[in-house]
Amino acid sequence: MADKFISERNLKFLINEVFDAPSLLQFPRYSHHTPEVFDMVIDTAMKMGRDLLKPSFEEMDKNPPRFEAGAVKVHPSVKRLMKECGEGGWISAVASLEVGGQQLPFTVGLIPTFVFSAANYSASNYPGLNMGAAHLIESFGSQEQKDTYIPLLFSGAWQGTMALTEPQAGSSVGDITTTASPTDKDYYLIRGQKIFISAADHDCVDNVVNLMLARIEGAPPGLKGISLFIVPKKRFDNDGNLVPNDLAILGIYHKMGYRGCPITQLSLGDNGDCRGWLVGEPNRGLYYMLQMMNEARLVVGMNAAAIASAAYYACLQYTRERPQGRPITSKDPSAPQIPIIEHADIKRMLLFQRAVIEGSLGLLFQCTVYSDLMLAHEGDEREKYSLLLDLLTPVAKTYPAEMAIHSVSQALQCLGGYGYCDEFPIEQHYRDTRIHPIHEGTTGIQALTLLGRNVVMKNGKALTLFLDEVEGAIKKAGARPELAAHAAQLKKAVEKLKEVIGHLVGIATGGNIDLFLADATLFMEFFGVIAVAWQWLLQALAAQSALAKGASPSDEDFYTGKMYAFRYFFAYELPKTEGMAQRLLTIDDLTLSMKPDYFSD
Amino acid sequence: MADKFISERNLKFLINEVFDAPSLLQFPRYSHHTPEVFDMVIDTAMKMGRDLLKPSFEEMDKNPPRFEAGAVKVHPSVKRLMKECGEGGWISAVASLEVGGQQLPFTVGLIPTFVFSAANYSASNYPGLNMGAAHLIESFGSQEQKDTYIPLLFSGAWQGTMALTEPQAGSSVGDITTTASPTDKDYYLIRGQKIFISAADHDCVDNVVNLMLARIEGAPPGLKGISLFIVPKKRFDNDGNLVPNDLAILGIYHKMGYRGCPITQLSLGDNGDCRGWLVGEPNRGLYYMLQMMNEARLVVGMNAAAIASAAYYACLQYTRERPQGRPITSKDPSAPQIPIIEHADIKRMLLFQRAVIEGSLGLLFQCTVYSDLMLAHEGDEREKYSLLLDLLTPVAKTYPAEMAIHSVSQALQCLGGYGYCDEFPIEQHYRDTRIHPIHEGTTGIQALTLLGRNVVMKNGKALTLFLDEVEGAIKKAGARPELAAHAAQLKKAVEKLKEVIGHLVGIATGGNIDLFLADATLFMEFFGVIAVAWQWLLQALAAQSALAKGASPSDEDFYTGKMYAFRYFFAYELPKTEGMAQRLLTIDDLTLSMKPDYFSD
Repeated sequence: MADKFISERNLKFLINEVFDAPSLLQFPRYSHHTPEVFDMVIDTAMKMGRDLLKPSFEEMDKNPPRFEAGAVKVHPSVKRLMKECGEGGWISAVASLEVGGQQLPFTVGLIPTFVFSAANYSASNYPGLNMGAAHLIESFGSQEQKDTYIPLLFSGAWQGTMALTEPQAGSSVGDITTTASPTDKDYYLIRGQKIFISAADHDCVDNVVNLMLARIEGAPPGLKGISLFIVPKKRFDNDGNLVPNDLAILGIYHKMGYRGCPITQLSLGDNGDCRGWLVGEPNRGLYYMLQMMNEARLVVGMNAAAIASAAYYACLQYTRERPQGRPITSKDPSAPQIPIIEHADIKRMLLFQRAVIEGSLGLLFQCTVYSDLMLAHEGDEREKYSLLLDLLTPVAKTYPAEMAIHSVSQALQCLGGYGYCDEFPIEQHYRDTRIHPIHEGTTGIQALTLLGRNVVMKNGKALTLFLDEVEGAIKKAGARPELAAHAAQLKKAVEKLKEVIGHLVGIATGGNIDLFLADATLFMEFFGVIAVAWQWLLQALAAQSALAKGASPSDEDFYTGKMYAFRYFFAYELPKTEGMAQRLLTIDDLTLSMKPDYFSD
Repeated sequence: MADKFISERNLKFLINEVFDAPSLLQFPRYSHHTPEVFDMVIDTAMKMGRDLLKPSFEEMDKNPPRFEAGAVKVHPSVKRLMKECGEGGWISAVASLEVGGQQLPFTVGLIPTFVFSAANYSASNYPGLNMGAAHLIESFGSQEQKDTYIPLLFSGAWQGTMALTEPQAGSSVGDITTTASPTDKDYYLIRGQKIFISAADHDCVDNVVNLMLARIEGAPPGLKGISLFIVPKKRFDNDGNLVPNDLAILGIYHKMGYRGCPITQLSLGDNGDCRGWLVGEPNRGLYYMLQMMNEARLVVGMNAAAIASAAYYACLQYTRERPQGRPITSKDPSAPQIPIIEHADIKRMLLFQRAVIEGSLGLLFQCTVYSDLMLAHEGDEREKYSLLLDLLTPVAKTYPAEMAIHSVSQALQCLGGYGYCDEFPIEQHYRDTRIHPIHEGTTGIQALTLLGRNVVMKNGKALTLFLDEVEGAIKKAGARPELAAHAAQLKKAVEKLKEVIGHLVGIATGGNIDLFLADATLFMEFFGVIAVAWQWLLQALAAQSALAKGASPSDEDFYTGKMYAFRYFFAYELPKTEGMAQRLLTIDDLTLSMKPDYFSD
């Protein structure tokens, strides 16, 4: 079946030609690496994706985790995966040297996540969760916590998790009720329930470390009273042996997709002896978790783009091999059929997929570059990159998450009835990718963050920085005859964006916060298209430069294809902002004044 | 779990208040019925949907058909369903009195299809296929064929199918190679393979009648050499016993959704003794089949709207019952949480679903009304309704098919993580509804039919008739102060539609047919939004009239909700045509000049 699931060529184009990742080596933080290391990361990740993750892609879907006798059994390939990700240093790739990591730039260190999740999304989550859990401990844990847990997470011997959600507290994290009672020892006693926790139990690791939000007895209500704890499934006794930590698995959820990874329901402290160790200071848990969540959001964006990429290449292969129909103007029904990739409508669907996938990747790498530059700088520069990263993170999660659904759907459509059947992989991608607008903060939550917080924070400072970046690219492209029209088109959209923001902020300053935020999701969609158009302009600049320099025939095909995908985005996607702006610029409280009773019939 | 899956109130609103179905009783063709019969059809269909189909909705998905020892076993509830649909006269509802049908208007007779497919889409297909197969025999079969097969299809004792697709001939029907060799008897010998045939074998009927396309030996190549045959699984021998007809089931496909109905692969005439009986004249098969396909396309539109309806009501119930979060401006984290239906973003997603579902239903009933009026008239009037029906059928299939995907996806989103799990029904609806842009002609095929054939046929006569209808509604609405602004908005969109068509036809008359049709799918989307906006205007006119007359409190809620959904469509959906028109009005051969080689990386 389909062998290719990502374009290595495109990854290297983005990293080297668009974002010049090797220039990061000038900073002391990354200067122990070389450009060769970057290439090696890509090459080795490709090999692991192909050999270790992809072979179990369908199997893990068809044989999902089982819950038996209070424990979860997962596909046996997870054991080898965790081991190899540990031994190969994949889990510790971006962690600091200080805790035994390799301190790779995020821009390079996130590539394996992309490759692995394109090869097998469910499988990629197991090591991915360890990266997040370890980073949280690295950032906020005590030295003892670092020494105890990080090596076990890096080696893949233990599984890390993020445990936030409770039955009554999903999007509304402030409503968690899991409690932590202080003791006269170094631990708290935890009591409560958690649901929808990925990989919180399975038989391919020795233990699980849950990074869990709970409320210390007497803490203030809401978001300000949440603390972060390490709550392992088994804890060490005085002799250093692992003993149960009074954490029961109540069950797993049966999901439409993402079936290779168990989502569990936990009960904590049924016997009054579930111990949790406070990370950092009391009541700072949400602040800590948000740092991890922001990384996790970029990872979700990567996952979504990765699944869309895998679906695209499976689709591409099919469209090359499937003969059906003839050119529209052909009159001879006995002429041989042509491969469907020759049909304009199929090429349109393929270009749409590329426009989404490669545009998403651009935005994601832009965020990782900001993250890398932030860590490489101090002072004002650090703040600048931090603000840009903050502003764009919800967009870089949401655009890929939402658009991957449409991208995979178009891949499926190209296969017709076969796309709907499980002998081809695309129906699984279609099911898998639907989780992304839900987890790590729904699209609605991301949209409220973008409009209600990020756009207006510090008097719009992040927004101004973003507009500077976009306008810089427009200026560059405007100076090149072959891109000037596109630059002008984006400039017009950016003016519209400013107008929309002015209009909305006017509503907010007028005091109507409900109306200001009522169309936050539409605003997110609008903003996302413009941000991705900017990324496409950057990619077009790089591709044009390469073409101008002269390229090998295969490279010329690559750059020319890139230009077509860029043109597609500006011809079919960017114009969508017109209709959105029309709505966003009205004052109409339709969704606010609609009463629940009116929905009855 | 969710009990409600459709709105009976809304069905009656559409039938009686928008389309005045009782006025059809003035025509001799329908004068043997009464308005009470129409209401009874709705009420009884609701009861059957609830009691007979809905209980096995999840079960049929979880226990899909099995292929064992060359035969297909399906869920046992299908047996009772076929029997009751036969005894209750549901299969014969719209068939003519002459063949034992009830000759109901299609507008009423299609309601059970809507109700049944909302209750259990897979199950609804079994009797639905019989309606189509019987109608084909009624229209084009010999008296003997009518006498032999129709009663067995109407009673549900036998299963009917449509057998078109072959491994090398999906969208390109003209490439079928199944052959029919004449004999000196009344039958032909059939040899070939068919794939993706719904319900072509199962254990809940005594026999299967395939309405099959094949090519008589020596027939012209392509579409002009296709004939229609009745190819039963078992045939009658001279003593009137059923004996095998040399038709082998090779297997069934495993699908992402629509799992309750088997899709089979057939081999015909492996032993040289598969007999087929020609329906009508040789080489007219495609013409016959297209009549049935056009009905089937409306049924697919209904199915898609029905699935979206079921998802909507499951979602609505959840949003009423699920407490999460607080009003955006609430500062008190210890205040009780509110049901999520109170949040503007949730109301937006609910309104979107209603805008799609009720708008789709409007367009579908508009088509059935045209069909009913066509059959009730002769001469010019008949031609008028026939042209309108022809023009709109691909739109009435495609808009619901494509938009139901988004509608169900938004329903799923409202449930967050729960929507992704199979303890709620929405993930199944999400999987089920994805088939609709594929079967009965893909969206790409529908779009080529709309733009390449229907818009331009008879010098644009159908289009002119359609524009007259739309402009009539705009005029009516324009005269009512509360709708005048919306009327003006639609008028502007219609002007844009004319401009786009003028532009495209100009390209065609200039001789560039490839470019004329390159964006047919986008044109379909554009046309669909405008057609549905027209339908919403008709519904708003009816709702405003009812509100003006004064309504009971519950009716007032209904009409007010209707007005909100109407306003939603005009505020959020209709503006999307702006960006589409922008693209459609350019001359840019992007998808034509893109070469397959440029896709390599």
